[in-house]
Amino acid sequence: MLTPFRVDTNSLLITEHLEDIGLLVTSKTTVGDDVAEIRRLIGDALGSVDLVICTGGLGPTEDDVTREAVASALGVPLEIDEAVAERIRERFRSRGLPMPEINRRQALVPRGAQVLDNANGTAPGLWMTGRGTVVVLLPGPPREMAPMLETVVRDRLRAMSGGTKLVRRTVRIAGRSESEVDTLAKPLYERWRVGFVPVEATILASVGQIELHLTARAERHADAERALEAAVRELEEVLGSSVVSADGRTLEAVIGSMLRELGWTIAVAESCTGGLLASRLTDVPGSSAYVERGAVCYSNRAKTEWLGVPESMIARHGAVSEPVAKAMAEGIRTVSRSNVGIGVTGIAGPDGGTAEKPVGTVAIAVVSDYTTRVRTFKFLGNREHVKEQAVKAALDLTRLMLVER
Amino acid sequence: MLTPFRVDTNSLLITEHLEDIGLLVTSKTTVGDDVAEIRRLIGDALGSVDLVICTGGLGPTEDDVTREAVASALGVPLEIDEAVAERIRERFRSRGLPMPEINRRQALVPRGAQVLDNANGTAPGLWMTGRGTVVVLLPGPPREMAPMLETVVRDRLRAMSGGTKLVRRTVRIAGRSESEVDTLAKPLYERWRVGFVPVEATILASVGQIELHLTARAERHADAERALEAAVRELEEVLGSSVVSADGRTLEAVIGSMLRELGWTIAVAESCTGGLLASRLTDVPGSSAYVERGAVCYSNRAKTEWLGVPESMIARHGAVSEPVAKAMAEGIRTVSRSNVGIGVTGIAGPDGGTAEKPVGTVAIAVVSDYTTRVRTFKFLGNREHVKEQAVKAALDLTRLMLVER
Repeated sequence: MLTPFRVDTNSLLITEHLEDIGLLVTSKTTVGDDVAEIRRLIGDALGSVDLVICTGGLGPTEDDVTREAVASALGVPLEIDEAVAERIRERFRSRGLPMPEINRRQALVPRGAQVLDNANGTAPGLWMTGRGTVVVLLPGPPREMAPMLETVVRDRLRAMSGGTKLVRRTVRIAGRSESEVDTLAKPLYERWRVGFVPVEATILASVGQIELHLTARAERHADAERALEAAVRELEEVLGSSVVSADGRTLEAVIGSMLRELGWTIAVAESCTGGLLASRLTDVPGSSAYVERGAVCYSNRAKTEWLGVPESMIARHGAVSEPVAKAMAEGIRTVSRSNVGIGVTGIAGPDGGTAEKPVGTVAIAVVSDYTTRVRTFKFLGNREHVKEQAVKAALDLTRLMLVER
Repeated sequence: MLTPFRVDTNSLLITEHLEDIGLLVTSKTTVGDDVAEIRRLIGDALGSVDLVICTGGLGPTEDDVTREAVASALGVPLEIDEAVAERIRERFRSRGLPMPEINRRQALVPRGAQVLDNANGTAPGLWMTGRGTVVVLLPGPPREMAPMLETVVRDRLRAMSGGTKLVRRTVRIAGRSESEVDTLAKPLYERWRVGFVPVEATILASVGQIELHLTARAERHADAERALEAAVRELEEVLGSSVVSADGRTLEAVIGSMLRELGWTIAVAESCTGGLLASRLTDVPGSSAYVERGAVCYSNRAKTEWLGVPESMIARHGAVSEPVAKAMAEGIRTVSRSNVGIGVTGIAGPDGGTAEKPVGTVAIAVVSDYTTRVRTFKFLGNREHVKEQAVKAALDLTRLMLVER
C-alpha cells in the first residue's frame, strides 16, 4: 500500500463504519512491513487516542509483522494460542490439506489479547488494550476484513461511541471562489459549532467547484437531521442561487431535473471543451429524454456548416468571442429544435493564446426560448483544468438561466 | 481526506517522486483539520525519520491549521512574512482584485522556515528542520502541489538520497484481460526478478485498460534503463500489438502521433458515449491539428439529419447495431471530409436494455480511406464504466487500424 500505484480502500470502509456509529476518525496511516515503524506508530498512539484499528500484516510469512510490533508496543510477550492453532489446522484439514508449518505464526497472540474469529481466512483478528487505548488488529484482504469489521463494530465498538449519531450533508456551490464562500459562511459555522446540536463545516475546493461538508452530531438521529436542515437553510439565505444542491446532486443532475420538469430539451455546441460538456450532461441516467444532440466543432468549417456561424463573424471577432459563442448556441438550438442551446468557444492551451486572448479565455452563451446569457471567462491552469472549469461554468450558467427563467 | 468518500492522490505522486530519487517512504498519514492531532503526528516524527512532507491546510481559512500545528511542534512562533504577503497581494492585483483580508494568513511563516514559491496559487510552500528531521509543507491542490514537488525534489531532496537509482516504466496494454496479460507475462517477470539488475513488475487493471509498472533498481542509472529496455522488448514480443505504449503515453496520444505523421484528420459520431470519445481525443495538446469535428447524436433525428443514417436502417436493425455504427462512421467521415471516421452506438444503461441487447451492448465502427472495422462489445458495469470501456475500445480499434493500415 506504500507503492505509488495502490489505493487504500480498507480505510475508507472503516471510516464509514466508525462514523456511522458516531466515532470520529482523527487520522489514518499507511505503513510498510517495518516492525520498528509500526511499533513507533502504535506506541505513540497509546494513551493519545481511544481506538486504533490496524489492518494487514497478519499473514503467515516473514513480512507479516503486525502482531510482533503491537506486542512490543504494548510491552507484552507473544504466545502461541493452541485453540487458534487448532482452528487454523482444522481449516486446512477441511480442504484435505495439512497445515504448513509457517501458518503456526498466525496462532501467535499478544498476552491478554482477545481473539476475533475470521470466517473467511486463517488469520484471526485480535482485540487488546494498552494505556487506555483499544487496539484492534484485522486481516488485510477486504473480503476477510469487511465481515469481521461489521461484527466488531456492531458488537463491541458501538458501546464505546456513547450512542452519538453522526449525520453528514454535502452542499455544492458554483460560481463563487473559496474565499468568497468562506467569508460569507464563516459567521454561520462559527455559530453552528457552539449550537445545541453542534454542526461542523468543512470547505472543499476542487476545479471550478466548492463543496461544504456539514456534519451534525446528536444523541438522536432526528435531532442531527433537524440541525442540518436549519444549517442548509441559513446557507441558502447567505449564498443565494450559488447553492447548486444540498443533497450532493451534481450540476448536471440538477439541470436534468429542471429540464424534465419543464419538458424541455437541450443541445450543445462546443469547441475548446471538445465534447466534455455533452459527456457531462449525458452522465445523468435518463438524460436521453432531454439531451437532443451535441456538436464538437473544432474546425471553423464545422461551426459554419452545422451551426450557421457566418465566416465573416469569425473573421471579424475571432473564433473565441462572445458573438461566435452566441451564434453557436443559437445555431445548435435552431438546428436541433431544442428549447435550450449552449455555445462554448475558447483557448484550452497550451498553445493558441495571444496577449489579448490568453490561454484560458472562454466565451460561453446559453440561449433559451426566453433569454440569452453570454459571458467571457479567464481560467487559470493547464488544458485539462481549463476544459473542466469551462464545463462547470457552462453548466452553472445553464442552471442559473433555468432557475431565474 | 478523512471522509469515507475521498481518495488521496497526492501521496501517490509524492511516493513516486521520492522513490525515483531513491528515498524510501516508511509511512503516510491522513489527518483532519485538527491542530492538536497534526502537532502530535509531526512532533512524534521529529528525530525519528529523515523527512516529513505535509500537503494541504495552507489555505486562507480557519480550517487551514497546518502552519500553526507545525510551528507548535517545532516550538517556534509564526510570523507574517511581508515578502510573501506582497506576492499574494500581487497575484490578486494581476486579476484586478483586491486581496481579501483572510488571505494574509497565508503569509504566516514559522520562524526560520524557508519559503518555496508556488507559481499556481497563493499558498507558498515551507521548508524547515527540527531535531534533524526536514519538514516540508506543500499546498493541497494537486495542480499547485505537483509542480512545486518537482522543483523541491530535483533541487533539494535528491541531495538527501543515497546512491541506488530506481527507474520506472509504465507499459500500457489494451484489448486483453488482466488474467490474459498475467498468464502471458508471468514467466517473464519471474525471470526478471532474479536478473543481474532485478526488475519488479506490478500489474494494474483499471476500467478498459491494463498497465504494467516496471521498476529497476541499480547503482547506475544507465544499468537500470538498459534492464528496462530489455524487459519492454520481451513484453512486446509476447503481447504483440496489444502494447499501446512503453513510455506511459495514452491511447489518444498514440493515435494523435500517428495521425500527425500521416497528415490525416479524424471525426467522430457518438451516441452512448455522449461526447466522451471526442473529449478524450481533444485532451491531447495540439489535437486541433487533426480532430475535425464530433457529433453527439443522442436522438435518432440527429443521426439521420447530420450523418445521413437512413431512418429505415434504424427501424430495421435498431439504433444499436453494426450497420448503424458503420453508417455513423461513414456519415461523419463524409460530411467532415476527414480521413478517419468513428461511429459508436450502444446502451450505457441503467435503462434501455433488452434480452437481445442488454445494457453494455456497444457497436463500434472505424472507417478510413482504405479499411472498415466493425465490432460489437458487451461491457459490464454501470453507466460510467460502460462509457469508459466503449471509449477505450473505440480508441484501441482506431489505433490498431492505424498500425495495420
